Amino acid sequence: MRPYELPLTAAAEAIRARQLSPVELADSVLERIAHMEPRLQAYVTVAAERTRKAAREAERDIAAGRYRGPLHGIPMGVKDLIDVAGTATSAGSRVRADHRAQGDSTVAARLAAAGAVLLGKTQTHEFAYGLTTPQTHNAWDTGRVAGGSSGGSAVAVAAGMATFALGTDTGGSIRVPSALNGVVGLKPTYGLLPRHGVTSLSWSLDHVGPITRTVEDAALVLTALAGHDPRDPASLPTPATDYRPDAGTDLTGLRVGVPRTYYFDHVDPEVEAAVRHAVDQLQALGARLVEVDIPMTRYIQATHWGLMVPEATAYHEATLRTVPELYQADVRILLEAGELMTAGDYLRAQRSRTLMLQEWARVLREVDLIAAPTVPATAVRAGQETITWADGTVEGVSDAYVRLSSPANITGIPSLSVPVGQDAAGLPIGMQLLGRPLQESVLLRAGHAYEKTQPARDLAQVA
Amino acid sequence: MRPYELPLTAAAEAIRARQLSPVELADSVLERIAHMEPRLQAYVTVAAERTRKAAREAERDIAAGRYRGPLHGIPMGVKDLIDVAGTATSAGSRVRADHRAQGDSTVAARLAAAGAVLLGKTQTHEFAYGLTTPQTHNAWDTGRVAGGSSGGSAVAVAAGMATFALGTDTGGSIRVPSALNGVVGLKPTYGLLPRHGVTSLSWSLDHVGPITRTVEDAALVLTALAGHDPRDPASLPTPATDYRPDAGTDLTGLRVGVPRTYYFDHVDPEVEAAVRHAVDQLQALGARLVEVDIPMTRYIQATHWGLMVPEATAYHEATLRTVPELYQADVRILLEAGELMTAGDYLRAQRSRTLMLQEWARVLREVDLIAAPTVPATAVRAGQETITWADGTVEGVSDAYVRLSSPANITGIPSLSVPVGQDAAGLPIGMQLLGRPLQESVLLRAGHAYEKTQPARDLAQVA
Repeated sequence: MRPYELPLTAAAEAIRARQLSPVELADSVLERIAHMEPRLQAYVTVAAERTRKAAREAERDIAAGRYRGPLHGIPMGVKDLIDVAGTATSAGSRVRADHRAQGDSTVAARLAAAGAVLLGKTQTHEFAYGLTTPQTHNAWDTGRVAGGSSGGSAVAVAAGMATFALGTDTGGSIRVPSALNGVVGLKPTYGLLPRHGVTSLSWSLDHVGPITRTVEDAALVLTALAGHDPRDPASLPTPATDYRPDAGTDLTGLRVGVPRTYYFDHVDPEVEAAVRHAVDQLQALGARLVEVDIPMTRYIQATHWGLMVPEATAYHEATLRTVPELYQADVRILLEAGELMTAGDYLRAQRSRTLMLQEWARVLREVDLIAAPTVPATAVRAGQETITWADGTVEGVSDAYVRLSSPANITGIPSLSVPVGQDAAGLPIGMQLLGRPLQESVLLRAGHAYEKTQPARDLAQVA
Repeated sequence: MRPYELPLTAAAEAIRARQLSPVELADSVLERIAHMEPRLQAYVTVAAERTRKAAREAERDIAAGRYRGPLHGIPMGVKDLIDVAGTATSAGSRVRADHRAQGDSTVAARLAAAGAVLLGKTQTHEFAYGLTTPQTHNAWDTGRVAGGSSGGSAVAVAAGMATFALGTDTGGSIRVPSALNGVVGLKPTYGLLPRHGVTSLSWSLDHVGPITRTVEDAALVLTALAGHDPRDPASLPTPATDYRPDAGTDLTGLRVGVPRTYYFDHVDPEVEAAVRHAVDQLQALGARLVEVDIPMTRYIQATHWGLMVPEATAYHEATLRTVPELYQADVRILLEAGELMTAGDYLRAQRSRTLMLQEWARVLREVDLIAAPTVPATAVRAGQETITWADGTVEGVSDAYVRLSSPANITGIPSLSVPVGQDAAGLPIGMQLLGRPLQESVLLRAGHAYEKTQPARDLAQVA
């Protein structure tokens, strides 16, 4: 196995045991980027010199006995919505042409403190306000969408162009591209990872989280990044926690909720079959399956849009007035629509969220987690605007991609997307595990147990 | 002294010592109501039979050794915005003509559990959306406004028609009528007293609190009512606390902030002189005076209105559509204005509040409390619509009355209004003490020390 192929956990173990040097790993990944990037376009910028310098520093520190932990010397990508000192945060937008980050975001500072090595900034849908990331190509089929908005991060991890990456998720933006590219994506509990220095899309729905090759890898990154920062008003005062799942795969006693409603409506049959098969695997590992009804499903879309649209517009108020022509048309239209929303619309969405929180909490008292598809379809062809379901219903691609992921943003509960196979065209399928607030460990344990009992996954095979 | 004249603390002591029976006290207060109510109109309903029955029960329980504490057998009024089982909650509105409360509000249930005896429901400005309570007359001059929106509660307490009462405060509605009628009013920290069963005006600004004759009395009621209730989403999980101030009047070490800005602008000279004199008294008791600058004063009014107007409209959405003609014109106009506000306006107000919270927290690290006028003028004549200041500026009466009290609603910090004398016309003047979140004890200690070193106050002398 070449170094760029190693998952984070394996690379970290090899570095700690001094069987692999950070420089060797960085060089391997940079070479892989040089090879793949022309076809995939996952990065906005790659700072190869900076990367090599940081890798050499990590190598020296580790050689001198100053090993900092499992992220030390690991090369990673950061979504270009997240500030890193000394770089621009383009947010995928011409509006940010002259941007320079004021300093490190909290997550970038914590990665730096843990010794992780920045490869570069990854592509995002403009200001994270969309689910395709049109600049970037799917890691398994360059004629298909990467998903978004953290498309660059997911494609980089899937194709061996980063050992792990950070994304952000306001309606599914970590989990959707993770599912569409066959990697693991975790949207943590609202408030667990501080967002200071991360460009806001919709502050009551925004989350930062890891995109990795394995569930164990996601746990390692989460452990390094979680923890209070008063500069994010929503940041929770949580104790330091080691999220790494233990090695066991016995899920006896775990109650897994299987949605009777919503999550299997208008879902591609191959996606449904793969997810149900994975749920059966959880049962085979000892989990007890419990049918659950998803509450208030008629309100999910209106609530999500009612919160997101005005909050996004408020953030862009000034530039929307001064430089509207610098936005892409799809994003500008959404931002302008937000100017027409009334305070009553927004308040109705806030009140609906309060009720949904209560109802989901009730369901999650009956089960330990809920298993469901992450997205209802695999990656569509670039430029495809709608999906036609078996009953003739036509749905916009973005509406379909956000539909199953947005409940976790509205309610703030954690959601972990795990690859569960491929469709006939060879495109990845994702299953999401949804849990109680701050119960990431339960999701990671179940996801890890599932993963351990499956054949190891390969890197993306680009078609 | 006749029983109706006793402050709560003295009445409670007499009842506990069996020198006064709850029946004797209730009869005395009911007689006082019969005498004064025709002139003052403080009550929507007086349930004399229910009152006497409850008083007899209290008497029996206490005689049998089942004394429940200082509220046992004490007759009190409840603002008619607060649900009490078996009564209507008119909210001062024809919209509520057929209302029956579903059951006790949390505060009513806690008063009942403490053995307090309900006299009746007191007048409120319609749905608490105004600062005059036009149905009710000032306890010191029936030609002048009661203040509002808890006008009935303040007048009842001031005139001996209730030993204490409950009010609600969204922009000053406890403190304004307390100041204008010469009684003590406490708006506690946001979330300290549960609002379950209390008609909402603006849920992010609404508070319940006591109106009493003395600071010590306010502490007794607060002690009985504070504590978590999950049915109010904003309710704080605080431990049971005894808020009664100790007997000492030494304030050595207490840092009292005296505003250099805002709180003494456009304030009647007699009000300013009385408040500054009271501040000097705090200094004479050992407090150290520290000049402070009030932050973001230009944003206070816009922030308060930006939050309150759309939240109020959202609450009345349905009835505003079906029975608009049942609202009073002043309230209907405000509610209809709320339909025109954009989500952007509301979000700007929310963001401004976040900044104000941070700035006030900074000021309140430098001092233990801030002393300031409660309202900039004493009670105006009924029907008077504006106040003209010395520099020729004309201000609406409601704008003036809410101006100095709304910062504590926006920021959620506690504020205690204490009588500090009268103007040349014999009308009461109030000073408010503003403190850090959940530091009610500091305000009560300072207010109590001030009060103990002043001559005892008489009941209102109706002119």
